[in-house]
Amino acid sequence: MIRLSVLYPKTEGASFDHDYYRDKHVPLACKTFGLASAEIDKGLDGPYVAAVHFKFDSMEAVGAAMGSAGIGDVMADIKNYTTIQPVMQTSETVD
Amino acid sequence: MIRLSVLYPKTEGASFDHDYYRDKHVPLACKTFGLASAEIDKGLDGPYVAAVHFKFDSMEAVGAAMGSAGIGDVMADIKNYTTIQPVMQTSETVD
Repeated sequence: MIRLSVLYPKTEGASFDHDYYRDKHVPLACKTFGLASAEIDKGLDGPYVAAVHFKFDSMEAVGAAMGSAGIGDVMADIKNYTTIQPVMQTSETVD
Repeated sequence: MIRLSVLYPKTEGASFDHDYYRDKHVPLACKTFGLASAEIDKGLDGPYVAAVHFKFDSMEAVGAAMGSAGIGDVMADIKNYTTIQPVMQTSETVD
């Protein structure tokens, strides 16, 4: 499995609307990527204020999701909950 | 639930023994923390070469794990697989 993590670094003067993120943005991203769900984190301590983890069957599936028709709408929605520039991490999950 | 992520940043000149991490270190950490399992990541793209995600029922459980008798052995074992200084992130998982 491939884990695609999107991490939002704590940024001076930036806000993050956790409710919008949970209720609107992540569901939109899941629908666009064809995923049933994702894991959302609200940061308590450490460098990140929020994160989401999507799981895909393969790197090909990640590529297909990133190239899906609705990706522009997902990207355009970011301004509705934060001005933070997210960090992307792609990893293979180890069994 | 609380997610405790330990993230290993890509570091010039540093190595990371993924096999030792999976077979020895993470099982030792789980045993020490009283957890049945954890999720391990092998970085493919992004700022981290490896990560592990532990899930706890509460911050009190995280505190108990960090104060457990074997924590010194867990910390002392890090030198056996890497010289990278890990980054810790504690988050509340959002349903």
